[in-house]
Amino acid sequence: VDEQKIIDFVRKSVSFQSPGVIMGIGDDTAVLKYDTRRYLLATTDTLVGDVHYLPDYFTPKQVGIKAIESNVSDIAAMGGVPTYAMISLILPRNTDKGFIQGLYSGIRMCSNKYKISIIGGNVSRGNQVSITTQMMGFVDKKNLCLREDAEIGDLICVTGMLGASKVGLELLKLKKLGKSINAFLNPKSNLQSAKKIAKYANAMEDISDGLATEIKNICKESKTGAKIYKNKIPIKKSAIKDSKILGKDPINFALYGGEDYEIVFTIPKKNVKYLEKRNCKIYILGKILPKKEGIFLMDDGRKTKLGSGYNHL
Amino acid sequence: VDEQKIIDFVRKSVSFQSPGVIMGIGDDTAVLKYDTRRYLLATTDTLVGDVHYLPDYFTPKQVGIKAIESNVSDIAAMGGVPTYAMISLILPRNTDKGFIQGLYSGIRMCSNKYKISIIGGNVSRGNQVSITTQMMGFVDKKNLCLREDAEIGDLICVTGMLGASKVGLELLKLKKLGKSINAFLNPKSNLQSAKKIAKYANAMEDISDGLATEIKNICKESKTGAKIYKNKIPIKKSAIKDSKILGKDPINFALYGGEDYEIVFTIPKKNVKYLEKRNCKIYILGKILPKKEGIFLMDDGRKTKLGSGYNHL
Repeated sequence: VDEQKIIDFVRKSVSFQSPGVIMGIGDDTAVLKYDTRRYLLATTDTLVGDVHYLPDYFTPKQVGIKAIESNVSDIAAMGGVPTYAMISLILPRNTDKGFIQGLYSGIRMCSNKYKISIIGGNVSRGNQVSITTQMMGFVDKKNLCLREDAEIGDLICVTGMLGASKVGLELLKLKKLGKSINAFLNPKSNLQSAKKIAKYANAMEDISDGLATEIKNICKESKTGAKIYKNKIPIKKSAIKDSKILGKDPINFALYGGEDYEIVFTIPKKNVKYLEKRNCKIYILGKILPKKEGIFLMDDGRKTKLGSGYNHL
Repeated sequence: VDEQKIIDFVRKSVSFQSPGVIMGIGDDTAVLKYDTRRYLLATTDTLVGDVHYLPDYFTPKQVGIKAIESNVSDIAAMGGVPTYAMISLILPRNTDKGFIQGLYSGIRMCSNKYKISIIGGNVSRGNQVSITTQMMGFVDKKNLCLREDAEIGDLICVTGMLGASKVGLELLKLKKLGKSINAFLNPKSNLQSAKKIAKYANAMEDISDGLATEIKNICKESKTGAKIYKNKIPIKKSAIKDSKILGKDPINFALYGGEDYEIVFTIPKKNVKYLEKRNCKIYILGKILPKKEGIFLMDDGRKTKLGSGYNHL
């Protein structure tokens, strides 16, 4: 099962598009007509036990929080704010009552924080726990940032330091300790920065599948190339420290790790000053190029290939 | 895992409701503000392999069709029409390419039929196939029919003959043949009738969990009782015939079987003539009563208890 191949297949095989659809398959979040000022956003994300979270390490409450945060992150990456959510659970017959209570205490706490209404859902029986969250939100039309909106010459930036989440996962798998574990267990979307950036950015994505993959997605949809300066990629201190325990280079976690839920965006150089004025911390790490120049990493003046995703580690 | 208990728990534990929510948890479908004329509807439903469909008997295309039809049925039961859908798949690592292609040929065929745009989704790895469909649609405000809208004195009606789907499932499980199997493998929502009825009905529900359960849901939310005439319940011919093979009383399948996807609704007596004029076939089978009279079945002049759901068979 190669997710990207399946999505490409679905995209080709789906034929009918109603006039209400501004952006369907092709971004993390669908964009739909709403009123004169706003678009309606809709996204969905699934957590599968043992795949997307580790039942031995996550409390049920943390699972509930992750279910909400990962979807908020997708809405934020469009320049929008979340409003409604539906939760579809698959639960084994012997599921502990405490699991469901803990899960919903996380869902409730996190959705209240963002003023998201839980408007419905579904409970099904199955042999493995999964939580599919569907979230809706709104975006001012002038703030909408699509993957396909990057322009040649834009600076490529991120909103925070990367790598800790996947370092934390590796530590857990090896039963080792380190501060990075906290980043993996308690993911947090960066809605506040995304809201500030949306007015000034062109393309935006949240870093759920790794920085390299997200930049490649932006380039694919925008039909551009990109240059990334390896030494400009901000790596979280805990990721650097804990990578030593793993005997691995932390840059690979920052580039390919994913689930950091920071925002990567492209912005015209002239707009950067507005973000500085608004105290929005950003890290500039590359530039959008014409498509024919390709997508590559600059490492001490040498061009190198940009790998793709966590599999690359 | 008792679905109703979990839903009741979720309903109590979810606290924040935004002003955009007309109806949240408590109906099959959420109702949200849209424009001056219409509400936005949102529903979700999950099919789990071996639970909601039997991989040995359903073709992948039939699974795709069922995923769409069951959600269309929920939108229809609000008096609305479906517009957008998102599909979230969980697939085991070894999933056959043919399964995905077949599934999407069903999803595509069925969504094109209803002019539904597939606007997004998600693919995750897991150890059991599941398909979670989230569907949106619109309803004219004046046509909205909620569970809670039944009025004392309303007639209780259904749009078609019942029982065949669950008889078909029982036949399949016993490896016996019969026409009812077709009803189980090829569920079809009754959007056409629902559209005609919505203008004149008070409460509406689609019969996914069985006639008795749906009527109880309507009574619970409308705070009423109900009287059902056992001999007025329309049973499909194939269900009657195939029940003999099973050695069971077909009325139990019609009352408790579910997945027939016809519509049960309550309507003021004076409005029935409008449905007749519009050639909308309906079966009148009971009456909404004050809550204190309870919910019961009339069997040859004797009051009997109304069971609940498929478990009752």
